[in-house]
Amino acid sequence: MLCFEDFQPGHSFALATHQVTADEIVEFATEFDPQPMHLSEEAGRASILGGLSASGWHTASLFMRMMFDGWLSRSTSEGSPGIDVMEWKKPVLAGDTLSGRSTVLDARPLRTRPGLGLVKFQHEVQNQRGEVVMRGENPIMMRMRDPDEAAA
Amino acid sequence: MLCFEDFQPGHSFALATHQVTADEIVEFATEFDPQPMHLSEEAGRASILGGLSASGWHTASLFMRMMFDGWLSRSTSEGSPGIDVMEWKKPVLAGDTLSGRSTVLDARPLRTRPGLGLVKFQHEVQNQRGEVVMRGENPIMMRMRDPDEAAA
Repeated sequence: MLCFEDFQPGHSFALATHQVTADEIVEFATEFDPQPMHLSEEAGRASILGGLSASGWHTASLFMRMMFDGWLSRSTSEGSPGIDVMEWKKPVLAGDTLSGRSTVLDARPLRTRPGLGLVKFQHEVQNQRGEVVMRGENPIMMRMRDPDEAAA
Repeated sequence: MLCFEDFQPGHSFALATHQVTADEIVEFATEFDPQPMHLSEEAGRASILGGLSASGWHTASLFMRMMFDGWLSRSTSEGSPGIDVMEWKKPVLAGDTLSGRSTVLDARPLRTRPGLGLVKFQHEVQNQRGEVVMRGENPIMMRMRDPDEAAA
């Protein structure tokens, strides 16, 4: 298991890859974000996005799963207090294959929660052409392998 | 339709309400965020969240739909470049009823895209006890009712 001590600034961890289908774009949008450009190819082409494109909240949720499968499921994560910033840089279109990485920006023990540390990550998701489609920063709480050593 | 000109700093717009079910928490988590505390009541109670709790990405996606139904569907929204900050302040538990508001922080014409303006919102989602469960800020692009007037 990856513990707090394993997340050193500069280290990076690969996300799993995911191919986005038209069906899942429409299914997510129907439930959570029924704006026309997320519901049909025609409306997508008529918008500034240029085609049937995933809701930004769908891309964010897909990123979560790609992170889980890529490395988070092998870590001592205790969840996250939020998102510091998230930019949707390019449209995510039906047929795109997404990949990416999480890179450690900072890591520090949490004084208020002994045995836990806060690791701040920069996440990047790119498409099959290497274009960054989403970039974000968020902190994740991680249990320590050896709490006594960090307290010392 | 609500246009750029209708979003003045200090104005606020109600989100639709939504009651969160255990089934939808588990369904979302199974697809996007299969951490144990989002998959069963038992694992949720054993975690720092205190019960079966929605993934933060689920809460964010529910917020998007509550915003769409509350006011965004009656606006000239052209989408958003991202999220400035998003805090998950309290667990969202099965059975919670969510409500909230979007308040305008700032609004300015976009020089690079004539006829569009950028409106920066603070969003708050609260539960049935009035506790804020999620708070965030994000900018949304809005078409103008009268582009010539803004350019003048």
